[in-house]
Amino acid sequence: MVERRRPIKVNEAIERVMRFKRTGSTQFIEIEDSYGHFLGEDLIADHDVPFFDRSPYDGFAVRSKDTAHASRENPISFEVIGEIGAGSVFEGPIGNQQAVRIMTGAQIPDNCDAVVMLELANEYEADGKAMFDLKRSLKPGENISFTGEDTKKGTVLAKKGTYINPGIIALLATFGYRKVPISNSPVIGIIATGSELLEVDAELEPGKIRNSNAYMVLAQIKRAGGIPYYLGQFSDDFDTCYQQVHEALEKVDILITTGGVSVGDYDYLPAIYDKLGANVLFNKIAMRPGSVTTVAELGGKLLFGLSGNPSACYVGFELFTRPMIRAFLHNKKPFLKKEYAILGADFKKPNPFDRFVRGHLTFEYGKLVANPVGLDKSNVVTSLGQADIFIQLPGGTRGYEKGMEVVVLLLEDQEGTIYDDFASKGLKVRGRINHG
Amino acid sequence: MVERRRPIKVNEAIERVMRFKRTGSTQFIEIEDSYGHFLGEDLIADHDVPFFDRSPYDGFAVRSKDTAHASRENPISFEVIGEIGAGSVFEGPIGNQQAVRIMTGAQIPDNCDAVVMLELANEYEADGKAMFDLKRSLKPGENISFTGEDTKKGTVLAKKGTYINPGIIALLATFGYRKVPISNSPVIGIIATGSELLEVDAELEPGKIRNSNAYMVLAQIKRAGGIPYYLGQFSDDFDTCYQQVHEALEKVDILITTGGVSVGDYDYLPAIYDKLGANVLFNKIAMRPGSVTTVAELGGKLLFGLSGNPSACYVGFELFTRPMIRAFLHNKKPFLKKEYAILGADFKKPNPFDRFVRGHLTFEYGKLVANPVGLDKSNVVTSLGQADIFIQLPGGTRGYEKGMEVVVLLLEDQEGTIYDDFASKGLKVRGRINHG
Repeated sequence: MVERRRPIKVNEAIERVMRFKRTGSTQFIEIEDSYGHFLGEDLIADHDVPFFDRSPYDGFAVRSKDTAHASRENPISFEVIGEIGAGSVFEGPIGNQQAVRIMTGAQIPDNCDAVVMLELANEYEADGKAMFDLKRSLKPGENISFTGEDTKKGTVLAKKGTYINPGIIALLATFGYRKVPISNSPVIGIIATGSELLEVDAELEPGKIRNSNAYMVLAQIKRAGGIPYYLGQFSDDFDTCYQQVHEALEKVDILITTGGVSVGDYDYLPAIYDKLGANVLFNKIAMRPGSVTTVAELGGKLLFGLSGNPSACYVGFELFTRPMIRAFLHNKKPFLKKEYAILGADFKKPNPFDRFVRGHLTFEYGKLVANPVGLDKSNVVTSLGQADIFIQLPGGTRGYEKGMEVVVLLLEDQEGTIYDDFASKGLKVRGRINHG
Repeated sequence: MVERRRPIKVNEAIERVMRFKRTGSTQFIEIEDSYGHFLGEDLIADHDVPFFDRSPYDGFAVRSKDTAHASRENPISFEVIGEIGAGSVFEGPIGNQQAVRIMTGAQIPDNCDAVVMLELANEYEADGKAMFDLKRSLKPGENISFTGEDTKKGTVLAKKGTYINPGIIALLATFGYRKVPISNSPVIGIIATGSELLEVDAELEPGKIRNSNAYMVLAQIKRAGGIPYYLGQFSDDFDTCYQQVHEALEKVDILITTGGVSVGDYDYLPAIYDKLGANVLFNKIAMRPGSVTTVAELGGKLLFGLSGNPSACYVGFELFTRPMIRAFLHNKKPFLKKEYAILGADFKKPNPFDRFVRGHLTFEYGKLVANPVGLDKSNVVTSLGQADIFIQLPGGTRGYEKGMEVVVLLLEDQEGTIYDDFASKGLKVRGRINHG
């Protein structure tokens, strides 16, 4: 006999999960190792940029008043009395019609207030002295990058929880972060269940498949920013199995099981939740694939029961587990980036529930195009390799046609979406894209 | 006096670099560790998927001929004589109007050829036997996933050089890759030059800046798929410096220096190339920023002399070094992904040379929009943290206006572009995007 479950909406499921979001601790690591982590504190400028008035070009530092009468008809001669390499400072006084050769980035001498670009200086030698002629006047401040012009000391340049890309690393180095504050990643346990599962290196047998979900989820955890902790395959014995889950919970921040949540006679994860005394947040979602995705909570810790079907497992992780991981990392936009696209092919399947079709995103002359990959049966594993989006097709329709506007969720993005935008925006909005 | 250099076009520079591309060796690593690497061999299906005829649903396996006369008016009764869990095989014979309970994914018994979905079976008990009534007929093959329907044994599912994402991992596990063939990453040495450079944790001094380029490039190397090897800051002494480069070349596949390539009196990298006997491929490119980017070759090994300006250094790496790294990894599309977008803000600066403006990509109702970040001075470091695209603005114009179509290069993408598309496509194409 079949247990009857009451499906809830995707957004309701997300809300129930996110009520238990936690943020993790932070630590300092070497700047060399910080790429790909998430900032554990705001990144703050520890000094003005530039830190001193500097030259943006190779040229000659001068006093602008000495150039006031220079013109094509009346070139003015300057004597070059020294030079300033990058990193050096010119100490001496600079007098009437004197100049100092200056390199890009070097500090402007105290009593100079303009820089003559190399191209405008006609250089020559006279009486063993380096000289140049100038045929135009310069305004005070001309060709000078002023202190603080780019950034003022104290400016927050990136928020806590920001993904650390190479540009952020440049900022960290500029502002003296030899050690970088990062958000500690949550440890996510994975247990695979299913008596049909073989180890990856096992020979195939009738009725069996190799365990692919555990390794896939392990990579999804890394992509989301977590630390995977693979606990192996479940025992078939209920008591051993209960003990395994119980012990696993001590070691991890979040526990994922794959399989064992269908309404089949062999799926005893619900019984384990029961014996643990865990609070089941939901066990059925009005979506395809992944309708059997189950989430339970025990002492504030979440147990994600993902489907045993690879595509359903993949979708369940990205919709429900990923935002918990990103929130733990102090990221302010923990949900998948949500955008509009044109559907690149018909998807005629009638659609009683919201559907998340694995797709590949292309850009065609500046427009986003969403192409479904594979057959979209929930057990089709071969399409997952090409997937970099979910195409979110609301339920209650007879199918979708090429050229229609759809919502897509980006899987390889580091920027994300805040919850309000993720949940509310444009599931059924139409006609905003000009198809011309 | 200023050395005169002859600038070459960006594409010409890329071609000169790519003439020296090499591909690396491969090795096998554990599947758990393979996320984010690049395949070292084609990924091939070692068996049909499904491997056996299986049920896509929970239901009852039957012989379709027994259902031929079933209708609403004439329901036919079936006796349930056993059950098949996932991973099990049913061995017994199945006779007239008999059925076997079957779980999703389980193997269809030998003499059955259809599956009754649970929803269509009215289950009951009679004389202690499990029974159900069926009110419609089934065709032979109905609700069966046939052997090889998804994928045939021997199919190439992903090409050598493909980025390993979570979906690819699922495929690797499914097809028995306990050990995964990956492309070995090239080792990229980095030497920072510049007497103005302070260590990251040093107090600021007049005229000096902290060394940010080395750490930034280190992260760019990781993003591209290489292994960075930081060799520290250069000596100011020419002979020591020459010796450092000479020794570094023994240890790395590619050597990057930052700074020291301008036409300033203090930039002696050209002299080092000369003493090494290296063949300078170019030392000036008609582009901004990064016009001083210099590349030399010695015994087939490349020395990238990137600019000391952070933005110029960043751009030079992505345009010239990244494709060498991706090619080494056997990737077939080693260049940055190139797409069209709408310019999101005016960029009025006159443009004698091709310009690569750091930008941030947004999607507005299904269209790509390119937003310049920062002031776009080549020494503005603070804009790099937000950059995820270059906006490629061809030279010879008076500036660009909001709403114009531009070409963008995507920095955070793993898919890439082949050379012909990268080099030839649409630098000056206009009007393809409907602005309506």
